[in-house]
Amino acid sequence: MFKKILVANRGEIAIRIIRACKEMNIKTVAVYSEADRESLHVHYADESICIGAPAPNKSYLDIKSIISAALVTGADAIHPGYGFLSENSKLVDICNMHGIKFIGPKKEHIERMGDKSEARKTMIEAGVPVVPGSEEATNEFEKAFEVAESIGYPVIIKASSGGGGRGMRIVHNSEEFKDSFNTAKTESKNAFGDDSMYVEKFIERPRHIEYQILADEYGNIVHLGDRDCSMQRRNQKMIEESPSSVVSDELREKMGASAIKAAKAVNYVNAGTVEFLLDEDGKYYFIEMNTRVQVEHPVTEMVTRVDIIKKQIEIASGKKLDLRQDDIVLNGHAIECRINAENPEFNFRACPGYIEDLIIPGGNETRVDTFIYSGYTIPSNYDSMIGKLIVWAPNRIEAIEKMKRALEEFWVIGIDNNIEFQISLLENEKFIKDEIYTSFIEKEVLASYFKN
Amino acid sequence: MFKKILVANRGEIAIRIIRACKEMNIKTVAVYSEADRESLHVHYADESICIGAPAPNKSYLDIKSIISAALVTGADAIHPGYGFLSENSKLVDICNMHGIKFIGPKKEHIERMGDKSEARKTMIEAGVPVVPGSEEATNEFEKAFEVAESIGYPVIIKASSGGGGRGMRIVHNSEEFKDSFNTAKTESKNAFGDDSMYVEKFIERPRHIEYQILADEYGNIVHLGDRDCSMQRRNQKMIEESPSSVVSDELREKMGASAIKAAKAVNYVNAGTVEFLLDEDGKYYFIEMNTRVQVEHPVTEMVTRVDIIKKQIEIASGKKLDLRQDDIVLNGHAIECRINAENPEFNFRACPGYIEDLIIPGGNETRVDTFIYSGYTIPSNYDSMIGKLIVWAPNRIEAIEKMKRALEEFWVIGIDNNIEFQISLLENEKFIKDEIYTSFIEKEVLASYFKN
Repeated sequence: MFKKILVANRGEIAIRIIRACKEMNIKTVAVYSEADRESLHVHYADESICIGAPAPNKSYLDIKSIISAALVTGADAIHPGYGFLSENSKLVDICNMHGIKFIGPKKEHIERMGDKSEARKTMIEAGVPVVPGSEEATNEFEKAFEVAESIGYPVIIKASSGGGGRGMRIVHNSEEFKDSFNTAKTESKNAFGDDSMYVEKFIERPRHIEYQILADEYGNIVHLGDRDCSMQRRNQKMIEESPSSVVSDELREKMGASAIKAAKAVNYVNAGTVEFLLDEDGKYYFIEMNTRVQVEHPVTEMVTRVDIIKKQIEIASGKKLDLRQDDIVLNGHAIECRINAENPEFNFRACPGYIEDLIIPGGNETRVDTFIYSGYTIPSNYDSMIGKLIVWAPNRIEAIEKMKRALEEFWVIGIDNNIEFQISLLENEKFIKDEIYTSFIEKEVLASYFKN
Repeated sequence: MFKKILVANRGEIAIRIIRACKEMNIKTVAVYSEADRESLHVHYADESICIGAPAPNKSYLDIKSIISAALVTGADAIHPGYGFLSENSKLVDICNMHGIKFIGPKKEHIERMGDKSEARKTMIEAGVPVVPGSEEATNEFEKAFEVAESIGYPVIIKASSGGGGRGMRIVHNSEEFKDSFNTAKTESKNAFGDDSMYVEKFIERPRHIEYQILADEYGNIVHLGDRDCSMQRRNQKMIEESPSSVVSDELREKMGASAIKAAKAVNYVNAGTVEFLLDEDGKYYFIEMNTRVQVEHPVTEMVTRVDIIKKQIEIASGKKLDLRQDDIVLNGHAIECRINAENPEFNFRACPGYIEDLIIPGGNETRVDTFIYSGYTIPSNYDSMIGKLIVWAPNRIEAIEKMKRALEEFWVIGIDNNIEFQISLLENEKFIKDEIYTSFIEKEVLASYFKN
């Protein structure tokens, strides 16, 4: 087992990793930017090293500084957390060069899964369903139309170089296709100087369902069930649950098998997440694989009672996975709410600043992962998430009640935050009935929330 | 179900009960003494009423004030927590008179289990093992000697009116008995004016093992497994665990059956705890039954994932128990450390006062039940417990590591506390090997702790 792990991250995930290391009797090194001197992860670690200026590219993204810190402190492994350098294959290379173990996947996993079209090809070959669509971009109407007709409507026409919704059209039948295709092409040509287009099946009101994977160096792979992360705002997850209440046991087994197939296709090693869209007919499509731990991993820990970070460290140290698929039971229901320093009234703008007073919820089946404390100043240089509140109960309805209770106890005085907004989501009738989808918050919540 | 529950308590247990009520959509009334105006339970409840002066007998023990508060607020039930009026049969009577449901046992359960010799008789009749000893007190040597010879040595001679160790002798063989009996008798006569004596089997190095019971009004009784509360200081529990690692599955089944027999013997209704001493040969003896929720109930919640307070409320409301014995599985291992505002260096004297700074541990499988916050002043009128830290892990050794990690994160600045002392207990080799007993801390820890 490792003797000393450098945690190349900040905030709650740095603390999460330090906690796991302490419980495993592994020494820890915290790195921090000048803005994070007073951050709790610095105090919790056995050693700490300042690695640069507040701007991420001057510190948490600076591979050279991080490797130097590891060499100076004699760390034999680096845990990257999520974000920052967690999916940076260059860091993996440099770690290997220095004989430092990167607690994550191999270089080729990052590269193969990080390239969307490469990942798509790999999944098609492995027999994992992907969103049906063009194999290649085209600017010819006939070719595009053929694809549309073969996959069936609705379809979405996307500009190959597109972004921001430009060069994008949703088409509901054959009659509309030609006009839409030509308009989208023109728009794309004008906007990007490129009129090559993709045609893809348009999934209406999809769910975001993802599977937690653990895979060791010996080819053992298990999944720890699914997470439903359909409550998003601008592709940012806000509330995550495990298990999804719309996934039947039969479908869970099928999707889980696909997730394992996806990981096996690249001989994956590490914790990882295979993300799918699930349509209203129960059909699912691979969208991407994240080759790192996710923000929302605690909901899986709550229902399986498997410590994902400890497993990740064990796997990286060469230990054989001591779990078989049959050992994994999803018990009860867990929900996570991300607590952000942001103001929903002003389009969720970030609100860093000084925390005058803080009361953190506690009690039965209530977990808080945070790095803030009373008297702490949240720096303005990083993302706005200041903590995660996770609860467990025997079923979804009780978990919602528990989460509301816990959110009501969460007092962060001095900065704006999204706690009230989260409570309003939990009280939303459609959320309670679980009639949600990835654009639910944008389409059905925001307007009415601000009317009140 | 109840519409509004008055919580006749303070501190962490008041908050625990308010949390359960909120999650069940039951309104809550907090009562508080003048010293507890700023206490968190007052803020968390829907309504709150000041019931008197800081001294417990002027507020939390004042039945009249509490009943008035319930009547004024229209509460339809009272939850007494533990301590204070939780085992007061007069309160039960007065609740009944006013049509307010007492969330606890019936009057006769409190009275029968509260009277030690009555409880002992009941257990003998029910076939639950009790510590062998005299049926009646005597001052005649022959009668006492006969008892000693029949139960076997070592025995303990106790003054009927005894206390503080006076009139008490441990005897290891027949030869010693006469002298010891006579000395004890004289001591007792001089100290209490009464020389009637009991002879009882002396249990060497016993464990304190207790069973959590849930019993409804329809005769359904289950136990939720055992708790090992052998880590005590002056009969005050300091660390509690579930399950006990010295109780085999076979013994657990046997002791659990005895616990259920004990509860059935009085047609018990409510949550309750049957306490046993367990000797080094695996023989166990009933000591008492507590007819209320215990401080240490969270360790049972951690391993069974049953919410004991919610069950207690459901049972009181007349709901049928929805758990059968087969449903109860003890999974993994849980440990609780009581966090006290006290100074171990000065014989654990209470240290109430102002909390300048507070950081509460968090993360995976880490539960904190507390009522303190940064800027709060702990009043001097009540017991010194300021919180409970509870952790869960797949096994005892990992749970100990997790508890150490969590204790190290627990920073209570401004008052003396026992956190460092608790860490030293967790690092004690005999504790780690689980070679403990009820007087372990006093006999094997205190002297060496203070030498360092």
